Amino acid sequence: MATDKLDFVFKKIDELAAAVAPEYNIINDRLAPAVKIPSISSDRSPDGRKNVVAMTDFLENQLKALHASVHRYPLGPEPDTDLQLPDIIIANYPSTYDANKKTILIYGHYDVQPAGDGWTTNPWTLTEKEGKLYGRGSTDDKGPLLAWLNALEAYQLANIDVPVNLIFCFEGMEESGSTGFATFASSPANSHIFAHVDAACISDNYWLTTRKPCLTYGLRGINYFKLTVEHPGVQLHSGMFGGCVYEPMTDLVILLSKLVDSQGRILIPGIEELVEGVTEEEVQEYATIEFTTRDFQDTIGSRANIFEDPKDTLMHRFRFPSLTIHGITGADSSPNQTTSIAPSVTAKFSIRTVPYMDQNSITNLTTHHLMHEFDKLRSKNTCRVELFGESAPYWLGTSDDANFRAGKMATQRVYKTEPDLTREGGSIGVTLDLQNVLGEKSIMLLPVGMSDDGAHGPNEKLDRVNYIEGSKLLGAYWYYFANPYS
Amino acid sequence: MATDKLDFVFKKIDELAAAVAPEYNIINDRLAPAVKIPSISSDRSPDGRKNVVAMTDFLENQLKALHASVHRYPLGPEPDTDLQLPDIIIANYPSTYDANKKTILIYGHYDVQPAGDGWTTNPWTLTEKEGKLYGRGSTDDKGPLLAWLNALEAYQLANIDVPVNLIFCFEGMEESGSTGFATFASSPANSHIFAHVDAACISDNYWLTTRKPCLTYGLRGINYFKLTVEHPGVQLHSGMFGGCVYEPMTDLVILLSKLVDSQGRILIPGIEELVEGVTEEEVQEYATIEFTTRDFQDTIGSRANIFEDPKDTLMHRFRFPSLTIHGITGADSSPNQTTSIAPSVTAKFSIRTVPYMDQNSITNLTTHHLMHEFDKLRSKNTCRVELFGESAPYWLGTSDDANFRAGKMATQRVYKTEPDLTREGGSIGVTLDLQNVLGEKSIMLLPVGMSDDGAHGPNEKLDRVNYIEGSKLLGAYWYYFANPYS
Repeated sequence: MATDKLDFVFKKIDELAAAVAPEYNIINDRLAPAVKIPSISSDRSPDGRKNVVAMTDFLENQLKALHASVHRYPLGPEPDTDLQLPDIIIANYPSTYDANKKTILIYGHYDVQPAGDGWTTNPWTLTEKEGKLYGRGSTDDKGPLLAWLNALEAYQLANIDVPVNLIFCFEGMEESGSTGFATFASSPANSHIFAHVDAACISDNYWLTTRKPCLTYGLRGINYFKLTVEHPGVQLHSGMFGGCVYEPMTDLVILLSKLVDSQGRILIPGIEELVEGVTEEEVQEYATIEFTTRDFQDTIGSRANIFEDPKDTLMHRFRFPSLTIHGITGADSSPNQTTSIAPSVTAKFSIRTVPYMDQNSITNLTTHHLMHEFDKLRSKNTCRVELFGESAPYWLGTSDDANFRAGKMATQRVYKTEPDLTREGGSIGVTLDLQNVLGEKSIMLLPVGMSDDGAHGPNEKLDRVNYIEGSKLLGAYWYYFANPYS
Repeated sequence: MATDKLDFVFKKIDELAAAVAPEYNIINDRLAPAVKIPSISSDRSPDGRKNVVAMTDFLENQLKALHASVHRYPLGPEPDTDLQLPDIIIANYPSTYDANKKTILIYGHYDVQPAGDGWTTNPWTLTEKEGKLYGRGSTDDKGPLLAWLNALEAYQLANIDVPVNLIFCFEGMEESGSTGFATFASSPANSHIFAHVDAACISDNYWLTTRKPCLTYGLRGINYFKLTVEHPGVQLHSGMFGGCVYEPMTDLVILLSKLVDSQGRILIPGIEELVEGVTEEEVQEYATIEFTTRDFQDTIGSRANIFEDPKDTLMHRFRFPSLTIHGITGADSSPNQTTSIAPSVTAKFSIRTVPYMDQNSITNLTTHHLMHEFDKLRSKNTCRVELFGESAPYWLGTSDDANFRAGKMATQRVYKTEPDLTREGGSIGVTLDLQNVLGEKSIMLLPVGMSDDGAHGPNEKLDRVNYIEGSKLLGAYWYYFANPYS
């Protein structure tokens, strides 16, 4: 009978997607109006922030229409601005907690990146071409977020009882560092929100390829550093002073060259020892993941992959650390021919961290290494290493619990295939914030979009089929979480 | 009798500087109105260029009032702009060539740098404070240029015959790379201008200190390079791809670290062998120059000098090469925490060159060295080295000829001291252009301003005393060039 119930839900989703105007349709009447709202959280103009709030209002209305009880949590002013942070939406469905059902916490974000250049369609008009729905936020994260609402609506239209208590948690600052979220989540005044949660699910990442769905159980962390070298004096002309003074850029590039080699190996002593050893069992797991070097080359747009074996590529993305030098401030970055010796230069670099790299150990090892290398230069410049901006520890969930089993069953049901079990190379800060609040409760990342969706870039898209089947996937996940033996 | 004639000239200069309004005064009525015209050659707006032309007009009027014959040479349109280049002024005095006199070519420039930030006075209003005349262009190069006119005016008012033929050559693009000057100077159609020149003098540099005048007989050259490392694909996220792809910034900083060490030693094999060896005689010459480490520290605003012995500092400024890394384009230079892997990064660096570093050899050695180091990385990125913008060879004049003897006698007469014989670490492109035209004829750099004048920076100034005594110096130089045994 299990199968039959979900079949009704799936049928409704198909109908909701296929309906022709003036009939209601979950693409034209749900995703399209959401994409139309340029809810760019990094736009610190008053109008920009109003657009984000318009998106809060939109979601509140959508959730209320689905009979959820909606609460908006103001987060106060955004630091260093005159703006109020957009509210966090907490919505409960059913509106009254049902003690006979398990409870799932669902996280999504309703803000987006700026459009940027290079679009071939209007980024704020959802445009379908060859089965792809183009628009800013289509896949990150409005599409997946609304897929949860599609599932709920389909259950209701099919007259199927949603078999779990749902707590929707939607924020509007994710693309700007989730300002206020950790404080909100960890506040004792808000602990009641999370009291009954049995498991959590975040749909805000992507399949590893364009062919196969996945469940994601790990994220790399990030330690972000600033390395500054300063000449104690004024800006000098390279003609008059070159060769006679210690030049900060000279020292800086020497120090940067001691961080990582061309093959991506981190050169900081002690870092390697912190990384969890690879087991034979783990290697075999990687071998089961459907991922080829060609997949990787297609994604990066070149053949400049370091590893020939796709297993090595996966391991370096999932479970080995990496170090990237992002750029330098203070030196001349103009395209012009200039001839000054910059008096103060700062490099920004970050280390992606994995089990069991403790954040403080990394900071200490990195600082010690750089200061030691700087001492060896016998320079009269000064040097300092600082943590910069948001750093986050790695996250490793448990991939063999009831939450992931439900995700796996839902995937098998909808996509007729076993999902890949993946980790992400990037960080999703809220995962850790939620894990802190939920303690031992399981969190699963269950993506709707694919590897080629192009989040953050121009021509961001979500395949129509992913939007529809993704809505089914999320609805099926609820079902199998409540009915693990069906 | 020689002394007496110059005494009359000097007396007139003193009178012209001391005169109180409504009487004519060479500060208020010559330098101040010139500073008032913001003749910024790098301002490519139509109004900006009009200001430069207003300065051309101003000089034409000044020269005509002094009975010179003035010719304006249009240089045509400025490449990549809609603007006409400002004219070069060629003015002859006396207006008819006197075959019984020697001929001196005098170069100056009438354009200035933009004002920039940090001024405590209005940069376009010549303002005297504690004996210093503040204003953009006061020392670079309007003050020295007008000092030549002061000298000519004083000769005339004293009824002393100017003992040489004068050819003034004033350009308006020096601060923007002297566009058009080399073509103008080397054009066969203009060869008549330079036909009778016996020697040339440029007053566009500075004393080595604030205490002692100097004559300058050498300039370092410059080879300016771009070093580009590119990933063949798209911009990538450091979380998803860090550790799996060759990162251009990693390769770039490794390559840059192979160029120069913290102590300023160039690491490119073969460069050192090109540098003229130091002779014992030369070392002794440096010892006679009045220059202390304290002078140097005052100028750079810190104690971050590489060398303790001021002789070493001088030699590294005058006669050893240096290499400066100016900055990087393509990597993120914002102050924000960003997480991308830049797909294409370009470092700008320059080598200051000295005798006998051939420009092509330097380019070849540098390119070969970097490509060799890049090969060693076994990276799948691509790398290229290019010359960029204006490069110029070093210049070395002859410091013991009639021209320099005249400069030395003029200095002894005005300042009652022996001038330092210096070279400059920077490049002055027109020196080479003029040397090419003049062949074996001597060029001398005869500065009016001091080491602390702050050309190009905020609060540029020329000491009142330097403006007045400098006018005498230039006038005396004419005199001693014509009368070497007086």
